[in-house]
Amino acid sequence: MQILKSISEVLEFRKNCTGSVGFVPTMGALHAGHASLIKKSVEQNDNTIVSIFVNPTQFLPGEDLDKYPRNEVGDTKICELCGASAVFFPDANEMYGKDEPLILAPKELSSSLEGALRPGHFDGVCRVLNKFFNIIRPDRAYFGKKDAQQLTIIQNMVKNFFMNLEIVPCEIVRESDGLALSSRNSYLGDDELCYALKLSRSIMKASNLIKANELNALKIKAAMSECLEPLKVDYVAIVNRNFEPIENVELGNTIILVAAYVGKTRLIDNLWV
Amino acid sequence: MQILKSISEVLEFRKNCTGSVGFVPTMGALHAGHASLIKKSVEQNDNTIVSIFVNPTQFLPGEDLDKYPRNEVGDTKICELCGASAVFFPDANEMYGKDEPLILAPKELSSSLEGALRPGHFDGVCRVLNKFFNIIRPDRAYFGKKDAQQLTIIQNMVKNFFMNLEIVPCEIVRESDGLALSSRNSYLGDDELCYALKLSRSIMKASNLIKANELNALKIKAAMSECLEPLKVDYVAIVNRNFEPIENVELGNTIILVAAYVGKTRLIDNLWV
Repeated sequence: MQILKSISEVLEFRKNCTGSVGFVPTMGALHAGHASLIKKSVEQNDNTIVSIFVNPTQFLPGEDLDKYPRNEVGDTKICELCGASAVFFPDANEMYGKDEPLILAPKELSSSLEGALRPGHFDGVCRVLNKFFNIIRPDRAYFGKKDAQQLTIIQNMVKNFFMNLEIVPCEIVRESDGLALSSRNSYLGDDELCYALKLSRSIMKASNLIKANELNALKIKAAMSECLEPLKVDYVAIVNRNFEPIENVELGNTIILVAAYVGKTRLIDNLWV
Repeated sequence: MQILKSISEVLEFRKNCTGSVGFVPTMGALHAGHASLIKKSVEQNDNTIVSIFVNPTQFLPGEDLDKYPRNEVGDTKICELCGASAVFFPDANEMYGKDEPLILAPKELSSSLEGALRPGHFDGVCRVLNKFFNIIRPDRAYFGKKDAQQLTIIQNMVKNFFMNLEIVPCEIVRESDGLALSSRNSYLGDDELCYALKLSRSIMKASNLIKANELNALKIKAAMSECLEPLKVDYVAIVNRNFEPIENVELGNTIILVAAYVGKTRLIDNLWV
């Protein structure tokens, strides 16, 4: 496995790739969720490039950019064990110019939920991925469904920019107790872990209600909110795949989402039904 | 020469191209200036694709989008005579999505001159060219130096987006009397043509002063302004290649620009020294 530190090294590596190229963009602090993306890419492509970049432009002032977990050695090992062909550690000074074009995420898609609570976040996500996609020119790029709105916005960008790649959505990976894997779980103290479980339990509750034929969004959201007490909840939402709020669950076209704080740690979870 | 009306036709055409691909994006109403771009592309590439698209997103409300000259038959003939391999007439409804990411042109580069007078214009230019470059994936794209600020902004976008193509700047083509060719010249009445010449004469005046070793920007601009009377002048500017105002001409790093109205027609001209 090659370690690539500059864009010119990536271009050189890419030029020498034969066959298909899969790309897994990450912010590092890799866990089994990331590993599942890398393994899927390795399965589906002749080459797999993983990027590890805590992208400054997708953090808002006051967010956890500086304390975001970093583990270059461990991450490299995980990439290697998963069968990646190369890991790219970009330098922010090389990625971003002093005066360069900005990208604004699709207005409607990014106006609600994460987009409303973290204004500018998705602009930064689009901005860095547009660069990555142009540098790496992958055939496929792998994203977890956990960042559901991000995944939808990226699919929108790729389609509307006419980029020649396939976005491959990947299932959420969970601990055996249900907790969705997240690099931010490392912020949680032992006493907070049981509170963190309230997110996945609220999602499970919604899933069970739907299986019992309860499709009314208000009722499902009420039951989820009950599960989440006493956490500080940012949102509990039921939307269609275009992220428009819906009154009744439409099977095959619905996402149920939750964002809440456990202590100072903000967690998200969701379910695609 | 092939006529391409849909993006899927362009993708199919592109897939079958062998060798290098040159791209000449235009808004139609082709004149000898465009012809020189096409011919240069034909010279330098195995395939040349010309696009003809009066791009709505680069016109401001109240500008001449509706009356912008259109001549599909004549344009097609010119492309063929110049040796183009294909002409692409995009459909705005296919080019633009309902809710899609926007591109903002580099802030500093687009804050002066055309950018200041036509706010949003360069955003629309970047937006459409990013799409074109992704659809056509040219090795080289050809732009006239007449739209000097546009050319510089596009070079900035290609660099900062890490797009894999070369932007080829092409010299301004002029009538024998000096008038820079422009599709908007067709708006001029016979009685206005002599007034239109004031732009190129002011540019010529600047050129002569510089040849006589006058490098003071204020003095050159004063002499140009005199040449331009009695036109309504939008700007006379002397900037470096980063579009920053300079006090003295720096040979090899300077652009002298003028924008003025002849009747209701807004014209621009410039000189790279």
